[in-house]
Amino acid sequence: MSKYGRRKAKKVGLPPGTLIHVGERKTEQVKITVIDYDESAVRESTITKVEECYPFKDSPTVTWINIDGIHDVDTIERIGKNYGIHPLLLEDIMHAGQRPKIEDFEDYVFVVLKMLSFNEKEQSIDTEQVSLILGKTYVISFQEKEGDVFEPIRERIRNAKGRVRKMGADYLAYALLDSIIDSYFLILDKIGDKIEALEEDLMARPDAKVLQTIHFLKREMIFLRRSVWPLREVVSNMLRIESKLIRETTGIFLRDVYDHTIQVIDTIENYRDVVSGMLEIYLSSISNRMNEVMKVLTIFASIFIPLTFVAGVYGMNFKYMPELEWHWGYFIVLTIMAVISIFMLLYFKKKRWL
Amino acid sequence: MSKYGRRKAKKVGLPPGTLIHVGERKTEQVKITVIDYDESAVRESTITKVEECYPFKDSPTVTWINIDGIHDVDTIERIGKNYGIHPLLLEDIMHAGQRPKIEDFEDYVFVVLKMLSFNEKEQSIDTEQVSLILGKTYVISFQEKEGDVFEPIRERIRNAKGRVRKMGADYLAYALLDSIIDSYFLILDKIGDKIEALEEDLMARPDAKVLQTIHFLKREMIFLRRSVWPLREVVSNMLRIESKLIRETTGIFLRDVYDHTIQVIDTIENYRDVVSGMLEIYLSSISNRMNEVMKVLTIFASIFIPLTFVAGVYGMNFKYMPELEWHWGYFIVLTIMAVISIFMLLYFKKKRWL
Amino acid sequence: MSKYGRRKAKKVGLPPGTLIHVGERKTEQVKITVIDYDESAVRESTITKVEECYPFKDSPTVTWINIDGIHDVDTIERIGKNYGIHPLLLEDIMHAGQRPKIEDFEDYVFVVLKMLSFNEKEQSIDTEQVSLILGKTYVISFQEKEGDVFEPIRERIRNAKGRVRKMGADYLAYALLDSIIDSYFLILDKIGDKIEALEEDLMARPDAKVLQTIHFLKREMIFLRRSVWPLREVVSNMLRIESKLIRETTGIFLRDVYDHTIQVIDTIENYRDVVSGMLEIYLSSISNRMNEVMKVLTIFASIFIPLTFVAGVYGMNFKYMPELEWHWGYFIVLTIMAVISIFMLLYFKKKRWL
Amino acid sequence: MSKYGRRKAKKVGLPPGTLIHVGERKTEQVKITVIDYDESAVRESTITKVEECYPFKDSPTVTWINIDGIHDVDTIERIGKNYGIHPLLLEDIMHAGQRPKIEDFEDYVFVVLKMLSFNEKEQSIDTEQVSLILGKTYVISFQEKEGDVFEPIRERIRNAKGRVRKMGADYLAYALLDSIIDSYFLILDKIGDKIEALEEDLMARPDAKVLQTIHFLKREMIFLRRSVWPLREVVSNMLRIESKLIRETTGIFLRDVYDHTIQVIDTIENYRDVVSGMLEIYLSSISNRMNEVMKVLTIFASIFIPLTFVAGVYGMNFKYMPELEWHWGYFIVLTIMAVISIFMLLYFKKKRWL
Amino acid sequence: MSKYGRRKAKKVGLPPGTLIHVGERKTEQVKITVIDYDESAVRESTITKVEECYPFKDSPTVTWINIDGIHDVDTIERIGKNYGIHPLLLEDIMHAGQRPKIEDFEDYVFVVLKMLSFNEKEQSIDTEQVSLILGKTYVISFQEKEGDVFEPIRERIRNAKGRVRKMGADYLAYALLDSIIDSYFLILDKIGDKIEALEEDLMARPDAKVLQTIHFLKREMIFLRRSVWPLREVVSNMLRIESKLIRETTGIFLRDVYDHTIQVIDTIENYRDVVSGMLEIYLSSISNRMNEVMKVLTIFASIFIPLTFVAGVYGMNFKYMPELEWHWGYFIVLTIMAVISIFMLLYFKKKRWL
Repeated sequence: MSKYGRRKAKKVGLPPGTLIHVGERKTEQVKITVIDYDESAVRESTITKVEECYPFKDSPTVTWINIDGIHDVDTIERIGKNYGIHPLLLEDIMHAGQRPKIEDFEDYVFVVLKMLSFNEKEQSIDTEQVSLILGKTYVISFQEKEGDVFEPIRERIRNAKGRVRKMGADYLAYALLDSIIDSYFLILDKIGDKIEALEEDLMARPDAKVLQTIHFLKREMIFLRRSVWPLREVVSNMLRIESKLIRETTGIFLRDVYDHTIQVIDTIENYRDVVSGMLEIYLSSISNRMNEVMKVLTIFASIFIPLTFVAGVYGMNFKYMPELEWHWGYFIVLTIMAVISIFMLLYFKKKRWL
Repeated sequence: MSKYGRRKAKKVGLPPGTLIHVGERKTEQVKITVIDYDESAVRESTITKVEECYPFKDSPTVTWINIDGIHDVDTIERIGKNYGIHPLLLEDIMHAGQRPKIEDFEDYVFVVLKMLSFNEKEQSIDTEQVSLILGKTYVISFQEKEGDVFEPIRERIRNAKGRVRKMGADYLAYALLDSIIDSYFLILDKIGDKIEALEEDLMARPDAKVLQTIHFLKREMIFLRRSVWPLREVVSNMLRIESKLIRETTGIFLRDVYDHTIQVIDTIENYRDVVSGMLEIYLSSISNRMNEVMKVLTIFASIFIPLTFVAGVYGMNFKYMPELEWHWGYFIVLTIMAVISIFMLLYFKKKRWL
Repeated sequence: MSKYGRRKAKKVGLPPGTLIHVGERKTEQVKITVIDYDESAVRESTITKVEECYPFKDSPTVTWINIDGIHDVDTIERIGKNYGIHPLLLEDIMHAGQRPKIEDFEDYVFVVLKMLSFNEKEQSIDTEQVSLILGKTYVISFQEKEGDVFEPIRERIRNAKGRVRKMGADYLAYALLDSIIDSYFLILDKIGDKIEALEEDLMARPDAKVLQTIHFLKREMIFLRRSVWPLREVVSNMLRIESKLIRETTGIFLRDVYDHTIQVIDTIENYRDVVSGMLEIYLSSISNRMNEVMKVLTIFASIFIPLTFVAGVYGMNFKYMPELEWHWGYFIVLTIMAVISIFMLLYFKKKRWL
Repeated sequence: MSKYGRRKAKKVGLPPGTLIHVGERKTEQVKITVIDYDESAVRESTITKVEECYPFKDSPTVTWINIDGIHDVDTIERIGKNYGIHPLLLEDIMHAGQRPKIEDFEDYVFVVLKMLSFNEKEQSIDTEQVSLILGKTYVISFQEKEGDVFEPIRERIRNAKGRVRKMGADYLAYALLDSIIDSYFLILDKIGDKIEALEEDLMARPDAKVLQTIHFLKREMIFLRRSVWPLREVVSNMLRIESKLIRETTGIFLRDVYDHTIQVIDTIENYRDVVSGMLEIYLSSISNRMNEVMKVLTIFASIFIPLTFVAGVYGMNFKYMPELEWHWGYFIVLTIMAVISIFMLLYFKKKRWL
Repeated sequence: MSKYGRRKAKKVGLPPGTLIHVGERKTEQVKITVIDYDESAVRESTITKVEECYPFKDSPTVTWINIDGIHDVDTIERIGKNYGIHPLLLEDIMHAGQRPKIEDFEDYVFVVLKMLSFNEKEQSIDTEQVSLILGKTYVISFQEKEGDVFEPIRERIRNAKGRVRKMGADYLAYALLDSIIDSYFLILDKIGDKIEALEEDLMARPDAKVLQTIHFLKREMIFLRRSVWPLREVVSNMLRIESKLIRETTGIFLRDVYDHTIQVIDTIENYRDVVSGMLEIYLSSISNRMNEVMKVLTIFASIFIPLTFVAGVYGMNFKYMPELEWHWGYFIVLTIMAVISIFMLLYFKKKRWL
């Protein structure tokens, strides 16, 4: 996905449902891992042939098939065919740059959303598209590359911690969703830190770098909003759809995810307001400083220009200038100059410019 | 809760429903007080063992269990188990930083909201999370620390003042809600005072401190809005839910609370408009002053620079400069200078710069 | 009510329904007048004992009880008790600072709204709270002080002008509402005059006073909006409620009131836009003038600074400066100076600074 | 109607339904014309006595009664009485300054809207209120003065062009509505021309006149919006009302009018955006020019002030100043001055100020 | 269509349904091409007489009739009559400048929208109106001129690629819609490139040209929004209408088009935010530079003006000025001047102006 969320135009003109990878290729090798579990047992395996994950479709145990890498048309197509996924969805899966959305089919629910991570090196937010297919007894997740925020869930499945082993595929899907949204809080924390640091800089030295940081933050906010706002609708739709795939007991957990989403949105809006306020402070402090510069200039100019004029007068070479002959003339003029300066200074004092 | 409403990220990765305290620990000792009453009698006690408050669940009298301190997992968990509260709610209770919300269950209604108080020392608004569980004959309230705005209600219960002793648990819940929202008016009064003081400062001396205060107020407004806007939805939901827990007679009181909430929101929006207007005044008064500074500079420069030039001309050392030889040359030049000055002054007068 | 619509906080902590007057006391003596009429006759009286107005409750004639002064707990309470008004409403009546609202009960409809008047002396808008209780055959109106916009209605009742004597209490309530909203047009006219005057000032001399007036108008608008926006909802609710108290024939009159309310809101929004536009004009005219000041300064400085430099050069005291010896040196230098000036002036002309 | 859409306050206090003309009187003589037609014949006449138009009420032919002039109470009242129009509507008809609206009665539909025309002389938009009463077989139109945009419709009726003669009164009402809304496009064209002219001025010479034109256009937009926005609701209501007066075949034509209304609104919003953008360009070009002025000043001052200082130094009259005695002293100093100038110019070049 | 989306006013006064071409004539010759296909065969032909395309109306095969050129009343009218299209729609078809919309009739669905293309020469967006009539077995498309984005669809029909040959007219209509909306992404890509280029310019040299480009982009955005926002409604209406013409299997494809439309809108809004942010950066960088210019001026003036004054003092011609007689007087004064300069420089250093 390009910097401003552009969708690469290379697909234009192809028939709908044509599978083609759009976006940066983030991994070389497609990696498929399967975790199959019920309350009593867990089987975890890395798969080399796509066919190995076919049989899980109808097994009674809960299966989580995770695919890292979405650029391989063949793999996606074969999984899609086996699990009966609509070609348009496969197209969406392969097309990094989707807007978060949920689609409800007869046999499965399709969710696409963004996993965010903070790139410490470039001090920016990295985004990775995650697509989820929730079937009756399976969840298939597609990621752009290896490495995710799901490790704690895997741990919980392995160690039968929490509810996850006792519940169905819908709970697993919920857990994945929840951990993605939870990870947004990490991003928000990072941004919160940046805002606080910025705030101190703003007070100490409001220079052009501060302005750049403000605008950087503003743009990150635009970006975050774009990723998170549609999420609200996704989760609320998920709550509303009357799919037999989502049990009622999972509903309350989804409501919790919904609350978190609202909270993320709330915080983003909050940050936006704060950052906007900082821009205002910055701009008015620039105005203030300009004012101060002007005052210094005016004070200097207003005091010395008249004095210089007086000196200029007595520097004229007229033959007949009586003052020049006076014995104390020079000192009288110096005194007059001093008086003018004092008068000017008092005037500026009164005007509160000093 | 951090300065900008960040949710501490330490929960990320834990299974949902894991009880862990998030937020600043505001009290050391968890304190549980129970007030149990009906129309004829009141029993008030401080409890040391959690188990002591179990029996009230099914007693016909109205019971108000108040817990100060939400950091103790064990206490919360045992109360939760006894009263049948969903683990996700317990998680919310322990997690300071919730957005105000209401959730309607079969046996109880859960409300979380913010109690605000004005911190005179730091001149800022302190926030404390209050969670309410309204059951058939009991209300459980969770606060972050001792000290609250409920004292007048306790008094009324003790002295059988008002309706409270004659009515059920739903009326008690309403009374708690009402006293929290009423206390917002105290905050708004404080802010109103600040705004009025600021207004005077703005007229008298619009300096950088004024700007800081404006921005401080703006941020407090952002903060207040965040706490109060969701409240509107909470109260209006409370009015709408068809829970057997909320009697019709309490409805009209809730409508009153709703009105107050609207009024709080109204006042906040009003303040926001006023503060924004003040920022505008500030900025234009800065512009005005810059203008004035510029005028002073321009007047001084425009009058004396030509005069200085004239003096410079007659300070030249050319051998043949006839004017220098004239007897009245010096005085003629002085007169010309005076005429130039007067002309300039009239020009500036005409331009309304003087 | 305070300047920014604050609700005095002195009520906080009291049980709901406690009657206490909040707001400025605007009259000393409570005055109760009763107008009782049907198509054939009118009886008008000023009452000294509250009890005298009890019997009208069930009389078949239409009765209008008007109470000037809302600070007397006892009066309000006794009327309330006799007419069966809910204590929370009595609380609202005594509490100047309500948001306009309508509440629909079984036996009566409660409406609270603001009567505005233009205070010529302070050139600001005065506000007075009016509460109406519409029963089957009576209307009770509560005002903060004597003096209102209802005089023409009284006249119409006395002289059987218009429909009022032929119709019921609901028509009377409508007439009161209508005359209050009509009086807003007077306020809007005053403000319109102010805006037009301001506009001329803005063109003639955009000084700091203009800025102050703009901000004054802006704040009055904020204030007006606050009073009028909720009114829209009040009237539209009144149209919608299916109360047996409001006959269908009155409906069309209420629709007319609704139209007027919309028109008031429209005009206010219109004024707001116009005043905002004026602020923009003001700010850009300030910018323009700063620009002009800068140009004058720059022209003066740029012409005379080089000339002064030339004069300075020939004022140096070097022993060997050939030009000084030339017989026409002085005049050559003067000519050069003139040429420089002309060149500069042409340059500024070209730049359109002159 | 006053400049900012104020409703004259002279009506305040009168009983509702009192007929009184509000607004500027735009014609002296009330003129009533009647066009009565069916598919086979047309009868057109100017009426001198109001009574002459009474019989058309129940005639099976379609009748269009047009009244130019709304200030004559008697005429309006008698027509109203004959055609059974509600007094409040008559009040609205006589009151120029209505907001566009539609009201649906049993026997007729009432529509009030604005006919706009561009006043070439004053270069502003003139407004005229048009009220329509659509009955079963008649349309009554009220205009403030003679002269309208309906001439083409009259032509079509006379010459049996288009559908109009074959269809009922509802189609006639639609045709009137359509021609009014169509005429808005003429206004928009005029404004579009103005905007384009302004745009060129803005590029060529952004002076104070441009600013005035921008604000003039802004205000015209505010005015237009006010007239057109409610129209949208009017037409959409007309589409929705289930009146037996509006046949289904006319519905599709109304949908077309609705589309045009949306298009008018769209264009207005578009213009608003463009004009706002122009204000921004204007303001930033002012900033840019200020910047340029400042640069010229700074360049002049920064080059000549140091040089003048050097000249000043060698203009001092100290007895012992060795440089003054050097034979080439003068030329050395001139060279140094040249070097300083060149250095300064290079510095400004580097800073991109030249 | 004019620059700001004005509808040419030449239609005003004509009866509704009058066919007249409005807009620029973009092609001389009307060209009609017919593609008629079913799963087994394709027939493609260019038609010279309108009558040749009449028989396809009721043929069981899918027929796509494409008309390039909308200025010929006769052609449009005859096609319209044969296919039973409402005259108002024909009017819309001939009137370039429609707002995108959908209308649902008994026998056909009418859609009008904009085809956009980027004009490389003028670096602006060209727009062409496309109207679609979807009947049971045919699609009629009207374009303003030859050349479109439908070529890939024609290829797919010819080569039986994808689904298109197996499905009905509704799928064809979808495919046309899809390819138009897909082409918007090409436009967005172009604009995205421009924005990125602008961003670099903004950092490197924020001059007046940058400002112009920002405003150019802003206006293009206004234009794009106007074309795309109504599209959302069009597609969502298309999803909702219960027309027997749109099969359920096509529904999911329309949902995909809807997603793309949302994505286009999203990207436009995103760009708008980014461009607005750039304007802010531009304006604050202008302020920053003004500040810098002021500082340079102030530093120069503040250092040299006092020094020049000192030199002026000792250039006075008083008879008795003891310092002038001192042997080291000159050097002492030079030293004093150096000290003053150093002091000033340190002062500015402290103020962070250097």
